[in-house]
Amino acid sequence: MSAIGALLRPRSVAVIGASADAGKMTGRPVGYLQKYGFSGEIWPVNPRADSIAGLRCYPDVAALPGAPDAAIVLLGPERAKAAVRDLAAKGCQAAIVLASGYGEANEDGARRQQALKDAAGGMRLLGPNTIGLVNLTDGMMLSATGALEVGNLATGRISVVSQSGGILGSLLSRAADRGIGFAKLVSTGNEADIDSSEMIAHLVEDEATDVIAVYMEGLRRPEVFKQAARRAAELGKPIVVYKVGRSDSGARAATSHTGALAGADRVYDALFRQYGVIRAESFTDLLDIPAALAGGRRMKGDRAAILTSTGGAGTLLADNCGLAGIEVPAPDEATTQRLAALLNEDPVTIGRNPVDVTLAGLRPDLFRGAIDALLESPSYDAVVVVIGSSALATPDIVAGAIVECQARSEKPVLAYVSPHAPHLVRLLNGQGIPAFATPESCATMLRALHRRALPPLPDPVAEDASVLAGLPAGNLNEAESKAIFARFGVPVTREHVAADAQGAAAAARELGDEVVLKVLSRAIAHKSDIGGVRVGLRADEVPDACVTMQQRLKDAGAPALEGFLVQERIRGGVEMILGFHRDPQLGPVILLGSGGVAAELFQDTTLRLLPIARTDAEAMVEELKAARLLRGYRGAPAADVPALVDAVMAFAAMAGAAGDRLLEAEINPLFVLPQGQGARAVDGLAVLR
Amino acid sequence: MSAIGALLRPRSVAVIGASADAGKMTGRPVGYLQKYGFSGEIWPVNPRADSIAGLRCYPDVAALPGAPDAAIVLLGPERAKAAVRDLAAKGCQAAIVLASGYGEANEDGARRQQALKDAAGGMRLLGPNTIGLVNLTDGMMLSATGALEVGNLATGRISVVSQSGGILGSLLSRAADRGIGFAKLVSTGNEADIDSSEMIAHLVEDEATDVIAVYMEGLRRPEVFKQAARRAAELGKPIVVYKVGRSDSGARAATSHTGALAGADRVYDALFRQYGVIRAESFTDLLDIPAALAGGRRMKGDRAAILTSTGGAGTLLADNCGLAGIEVPAPDEATTQRLAALLNEDPVTIGRNPVDVTLAGLRPDLFRGAIDALLESPSYDAVVVVIGSSALATPDIVAGAIVECQARSEKPVLAYVSPHAPHLVRLLNGQGIPAFATPESCATMLRALHRRALPPLPDPVAEDASVLAGLPAGNLNEAESKAIFARFGVPVTREHVAADAQGAAAAARELGDEVVLKVLSRAIAHKSDIGGVRVGLRADEVPDACVTMQQRLKDAGAPALEGFLVQERIRGGVEMILGFHRDPQLGPVILLGSGGVAAELFQDTTLRLLPIARTDAEAMVEELKAARLLRGYRGAPAADVPALVDAVMAFAAMAGAAGDRLLEAEINPLFVLPQGQGARAVDGLAVLR
Repeated sequence: MSAIGALLRPRSVAVIGASADAGKMTGRPVGYLQKYGFSGEIWPVNPRADSIAGLRCYPDVAALPGAPDAAIVLLGPERAKAAVRDLAAKGCQAAIVLASGYGEANEDGARRQQALKDAAGGMRLLGPNTIGLVNLTDGMMLSATGALEVGNLATGRISVVSQSGGILGSLLSRAADRGIGFAKLVSTGNEADIDSSEMIAHLVEDEATDVIAVYMEGLRRPEVFKQAARRAAELGKPIVVYKVGRSDSGARAATSHTGALAGADRVYDALFRQYGVIRAESFTDLLDIPAALAGGRRMKGDRAAILTSTGGAGTLLADNCGLAGIEVPAPDEATTQRLAALLNEDPVTIGRNPVDVTLAGLRPDLFRGAIDALLESPSYDAVVVVIGSSALATPDIVAGAIVECQARSEKPVLAYVSPHAPHLVRLLNGQGIPAFATPESCATMLRALHRRALPPLPDPVAEDASVLAGLPAGNLNEAESKAIFARFGVPVTREHVAADAQGAAAAARELGDEVVLKVLSRAIAHKSDIGGVRVGLRADEVPDACVTMQQRLKDAGAPALEGFLVQERIRGGVEMILGFHRDPQLGPVILLGSGGVAAELFQDTTLRLLPIARTDAEAMVEELKAARLLRGYRGAPAADVPALVDAVMAFAAMAGAAGDRLLEAEINPLFVLPQGQGARAVDGLAVLR
Repeated sequence: MSAIGALLRPRSVAVIGASADAGKMTGRPVGYLQKYGFSGEIWPVNPRADSIAGLRCYPDVAALPGAPDAAIVLLGPERAKAAVRDLAAKGCQAAIVLASGYGEANEDGARRQQALKDAAGGMRLLGPNTIGLVNLTDGMMLSATGALEVGNLATGRISVVSQSGGILGSLLSRAADRGIGFAKLVSTGNEADIDSSEMIAHLVEDEATDVIAVYMEGLRRPEVFKQAARRAAELGKPIVVYKVGRSDSGARAATSHTGALAGADRVYDALFRQYGVIRAESFTDLLDIPAALAGGRRMKGDRAAILTSTGGAGTLLADNCGLAGIEVPAPDEATTQRLAALLNEDPVTIGRNPVDVTLAGLRPDLFRGAIDALLESPSYDAVVVVIGSSALATPDIVAGAIVECQARSEKPVLAYVSPHAPHLVRLLNGQGIPAFATPESCATMLRALHRRALPPLPDPVAEDASVLAGLPAGNLNEAESKAIFARFGVPVTREHVAADAQGAAAAARELGDEVVLKVLSRAIAHKSDIGGVRVGLRADEVPDACVTMQQRLKDAGAPALEGFLVQERIRGGVEMILGFHRDPQLGPVILLGSGGVAAELFQDTTLRLLPIARTDAEAMVEELKAARLLRGYRGAPAADVPALVDAVMAFAAMAGAAGDRLLEAEINPLFVLPQGQGARAVDGLAVLR
């Protein structure tokens, strides 16, 4: 058994600093272990008590009768370190430290946290600043959360990993109210040792876990998270993440709360998309989506039937579904006829969606018949039943009908409870019908129920030290930058470097037609801002242009040039931007966006973490508003999208091969020419370390 | 007393079709009238009973001892019409018809609804297809909603108008759970007579109502709504609307549910913005926002302090605040020192926001001190207190401290309850502290608490029949269209209409410089698509261009031309679009947007209902992403925004003066030139009926 396995399912638990007063926070863990039926050994440690809750109490760790599988340390930060050292010496596999006042507090605390980790040596550590863990599958609680005071916790197939103990408690009590059951809940706190990624990786392999819900402030080890997410996707176990730090205020708060490193939130979005992780947009979603997924049913398409006995609530749901891209089509003819016959209704009235069965809602046989008709209809991939006030008097009959109908179908059946009726929500969730109380949840849950394809495997990346060999740190000039890009197959403008005006003229003659003349300088990032670009010159105009350009730069005090760049002039096509940078937390990122003013003004950009698969590059193009432009907009010719995708893949391969020395790179603009004519990198920049 | 007044506060109520069986739906209204202490006369009408619930029962309406102030009709659609006719004959002021099967069902139902309205004659009618009304202020219930079975309804200063009876019941039971009190709740149902706008107008004047919450599927009388909203703004009584129909599915469902006419949802957004109405984005907001506003306190700025004893929940709130544009700044130096001294904490740790007081949260004196410090800080406009699991054991102490601190300040104090703790939510709401349970609500509520300026009074509009006199129906040509626009001060390109090539050449010479040549035709809406536009011609090139253009159109089978339009060529400036259309439900609408490809691709447009004030036009510019472009983007010169605002006002005045005959109008593009150089309508179209 691994140390984390021992932590989740210990045979023996030492409780360091246990109190005999069950009302105190330090009295809770022993009480909870007993209350929830822990069958292993419980060893309270407290020098001031002989026995606690009927158990023999030990004066110190050294006096324990053996090495505990796990320990929970309830001491303050001053004394926790010694306890941890003693536990490690005793051979304990893993310890939980609840105290706060570590890395989340200030620099002193950060030092204290390092000392705590040092004291643990080879023993694994959960926390500090954690509320511990709750294993409902096996009835093993290593926690002090007040939420365990509640008696009605349901066991289920959702596990929770939270970087905040308070959020864990909040989820536990909210789920209890709604009859949503959990397998394991772990608060990783300050993550001095075991972090959320490692815990997720462990829970993905847990046989009692089908869905993992995560409260995340920031990832410490993205690579571990990625592997866990891929494995989860392979096993068909969804991971649902509610991540804070979407705003600056939130990112600041998250950083000071658990000291997690910040990464850009949009890069997290890319990470989740690429690795098949579902992002919960609201806190409520963090319970609703896992509850919907835990049943194991999935929608084969995006069409939902809404069966309601109260028109307004049905309308609410239909509206929210529509906003989220869930179709709410009217029933097909056969289903309409079946409903009309069953309910003795005008087909015009009943042949709508939401299907309004105001009166039949009160007659279980008709209610069941209507649910069956919709579940059996080829027009729907899921059925949402709205429960109105009239059902409150007979909750068992209503729930019974829904459960019975669900059993006859493989499609998901969900229930929206319109009035405040927590007992009905609990009853339904407890019987395997995901039940929810806000109309927004409906669309969120349905969207999550879509069968997901396995995330694509990215193209392998081979680092190649020769790529940047001999190049200096800092900005490269345009010719150097584009030469690197071109080596990996990024199509660049035909161009020549010229040392002087004569060379430039010769280059222009060689290129033919009109050319673009640019100064070549590592020190000048924005050439056109300082008059360093001339477009549409004939070869005979080039020498004069060179002289004028050089003189102007000299007058302006610009640094010496590396020469001139003479390139073919590109006309037509759609202007894009293709970029690369390193997120401080999540690593190398590629960006594709609309070029020119649109990129900044309309924020039409999309990101992926590297490495990527070709399907990622194709999806990036489709995610942009510019996709319409690329497909041929207002009579313009369609652009060469396959060439754009090729360019993205080539740029990604370049970034992968270049390795850590490449800090940033950008092609701006990248012209995508009409179909069959390819794409051209017109300007480019690479920044090395 | 008005008839609606009589309906809300009747001295006598006839209950037609009352049942002696209190368990039946038809038995409820008499029971509710008695249960909630109605002190007037209750007259049950039922030919098969002598007495009901201890009251004398009458065999029919004619036998009633007098004309009732109000009546509630519990009969099915077959018999309701006769009862309504009898009530009108008896002199009843207003009747409520609960039955469904009218306009919401099918065409037969729509005819039945018209017959019902006819039968009512001069008597006012609420419904049909309504759940009735609930007057908690005066303890008068004219409703059959099962939600009234709940005993714990709180009286408050929020009134509700809902087009759906089910939603009214849902709000009633959800609010009861949360301790949020109501004044009056009215379900207007199919609105055969009294509609939601009229009811809102009535409740705005209600002394017991401070805030009005509205569930809306569609407005039947926008003008009545506008007047009510303006009056509400003058009285400082916020109106909060949750409107469905944001998606096509929702709009379809709303239309079939109550037969309300659809208008474009974006136009509703404009209506709400212009008339100071708050739009609730989620269904939960429809309770949360009114609950926050009912206390009467307002924020003077946008800065909130978050005081928490549980870090994760504080982070959640900070993140959501940041997303919604609420600032969460760190405490000022003096406040930090005060908190550090009070809590004996490191100023580095305590000088953050959220202010984390993990331990102090358990000591009421410290907790109170911290709230006071934040409320007294000049850095904050509101304080949000997070309540964690630790407070659950002592809800009264926590609530007491918050209530006590609030009383010492004029700033809003809100409470987020992190664990599931409905008793604590109820306790706080009941004591005037808006308490909520989802982090998303926090930002929504704070945003709503901003002090709002009175919506601007629009410029008066004078219709002028001469504007369109003599012009034909259908599309006008560019010159005709722009002449109308110019008459109201819209700056248009200098241009001349020419009958033939010679005239065009003369016009070009007169204009000087390069010109633009266009065909002039009412039948050709998209001139450039068919080669009907040439840009940048010298005068001597014009005659040939005219001949070529005319020949090409002739070859293509285009209709005869009305001549040529020769206009100055406009260079530079920012391309905008300015449009006008009529929303089928809400009336004349003006649109301003980014021009060219951006308008469609990036949907950078904003709307207002006409008439508008100059501040509206200014706000429209600011709402666009193109505002950055207009302010001078990437070194480009700033554009003449005052000239753009002038153009919007002139265009609006034109549309107002033109009256109903003007169906659509558009200026595309409208060039906004650099500062001081004005704007120019380069192309234009008007469509008349």
